[in-house]
Amino acid sequence: MNGAGHVVRRLATPPPFGAGMEPGPGSGSGSGPGSDPRRWGPVCCVLTGASRGFGRSLARLLAPRLGSGSVLLLLARSAAPLAALEAELRGSSPGLRVRCVAADLGCEQGLRQAEAAMREVLPSVPTGRLLLIHNAGSLGDISKSFLDLTDPDEINNYFAFNVTSPLFLTSHALQAFGKRPGSNRTVVNISSLCALKPFKSWALYCSGKASRDMMFQVLALEEPDIRVLNYAPGPLDTDMQLLARTETGDPEMRQHFQSLQESGQLIDCTVSAQKLVTLLEEDTFPSGAHVDFYDI
Amino acid sequence: MNGAGHVVRRLATPPPFGAGMEPGPGSGSGSGPGSDPRRWGPVCCVLTGASRGFGRSLARLLAPRLGSGSVLLLLARSAAPLAALEAELRGSSPGLRVRCVAADLGCEQGLRQAEAAMREVLPSVPTGRLLLIHNAGSLGDISKSFLDLTDPDEINNYFAFNVTSPLFLTSHALQAFGKRPGSNRTVVNISSLCALKPFKSWALYCSGKASRDMMFQVLALEEPDIRVLNYAPGPLDTDMQLLARTETGDPEMRQHFQSLQESGQLIDCTVSAQKLVTLLEEDTFPSGAHVDFYDI
Repeated sequence: MNGAGHVVRRLATPPPFGAGMEPGPGSGSGSGPGSDPRRWGPVCCVLTGASRGFGRSLARLLAPRLGSGSVLLLLARSAAPLAALEAELRGSSPGLRVRCVAADLGCEQGLRQAEAAMREVLPSVPTGRLLLIHNAGSLGDISKSFLDLTDPDEINNYFAFNVTSPLFLTSHALQAFGKRPGSNRTVVNISSLCALKPFKSWALYCSGKASRDMMFQVLALEEPDIRVLNYAPGPLDTDMQLLARTETGDPEMRQHFQSLQESGQLIDCTVSAQKLVTLLEEDTFPSGAHVDFYDI
Repeated sequence: MNGAGHVVRRLATPPPFGAGMEPGPGSGSGSGPGSDPRRWGPVCCVLTGASRGFGRSLARLLAPRLGSGSVLLLLARSAAPLAALEAELRGSSPGLRVRCVAADLGCEQGLRQAEAAMREVLPSVPTGRLLLIHNAGSLGDISKSFLDLTDPDEINNYFAFNVTSPLFLTSHALQAFGKRPGSNRTVVNISSLCALKPFKSWALYCSGKASRDMMFQVLALEEPDIRVLNYAPGPLDTDMQLLARTETGDPEMRQHFQSLQESGQLIDCTVSAQKLVTLLEEDTFPSGAHVDFYDI
């Protein structure tokens, strides 16, 4: 029996971010060294965890690509580095509307601040292009083994920040943005190898990342008009990696992270962020896929 | 550089539950129809979600296998069916210590009740065999799509019950039981195909199950002396399946579950629970593995 009245709604294939690009403000030749990047046209972009590390590198790469009429909404817990980034981006991309919200996405108040900003900003941007990037995340207390995780508040808080917040922000952002004809709505989850593979001392991080990957696979299945990407950025040279090689309880794991650094295998955030930008411009990934830095 | 002072502790290979079995109280021939099952010797067994469905079927299969000196600690939210099961098991297995705790594992109070019971019961059982089975779980509101999941409390409560509680119970149970010479400590996570594969309308369930599987893979890696199994019991003929075929928001998914029932493909809980019991008796699964009903 077919479900009478059930119609699969499929909008016309939306254009990728790289399609119909405006000429860049500089040479216009695109990706040559020293040249300005091509612009994508107007995009409504939301980025969490923007104040440092991978998020900040990504914000710096995205800003010059966002064409006139774009808005870049940056979220992070720390107000001062977020304000510094905002000032920097306003200086380097004077035509871009940059809006910052300092909010702790691990608590209800922070989620409501983010929701209010999205409800104010997203409907006001006259573009079909929405780019939502969930970069915020935490390691949890990696000095502890699984058997040390005995405090329910600690575990609940971990999942509130790392799993509930990206789900909440996605549903609210997509509702605030609405459906627009010929739109390209893209949701990026900053994932990890830990979503696929267990690591000692990292029970919270691994299970949180596995949960996020799966959640966004469900979104991809439910919403064929939304492009969904789980991007694992590789072992980045960030404060989080510093924690990994100094705080990880398991000595073998700690040694592994130390040797990654000593042998120069850590990846510069800008290099990995550039790969993500290229993935978004090419827009050929299967929606819901887990794509690793080393795969491409 | 080797971590000085780091010694890998590996106890002697622990015996499986089926090893050194006592003769059953009946024919003693084991698995023939109508015969009593062989007994495993003394086991300290903790089972959540015990009052109905798969958990109840499993409790009924386990009780006659637990040898003298065993304790069966049953947890569930609903007091009345739990008390009825306790009475039934005491009648059919008169030598067995059955202890019931009616507690909502989705809230701190319920977790503390469970913790208190485990701290009282587990150290008092003079056996090296611990069997901890995480069967409790919920579907979440499957009438909603991903984009309808806008309430952070609803999402947090889902993960508190389905992810935090098995992690909390595992760490507390293993701490309360302690390390004992030649022990066999086994932790079973009742998993699902949804841990591996996304399904429409089931964002919470899929991401919760993916999270649990990964969490227990980390446990298996950290604790080579503990046996860890993620068992997916197949599509069971339970109240949860009734919800699946009547409440699932996505019409294709609902239809899928209806057809599973109409074509007689739902699995009797006892049949699937028996497969799990056999897996535990054989004890040959790789620790941390995801084993599906249909794989064996």
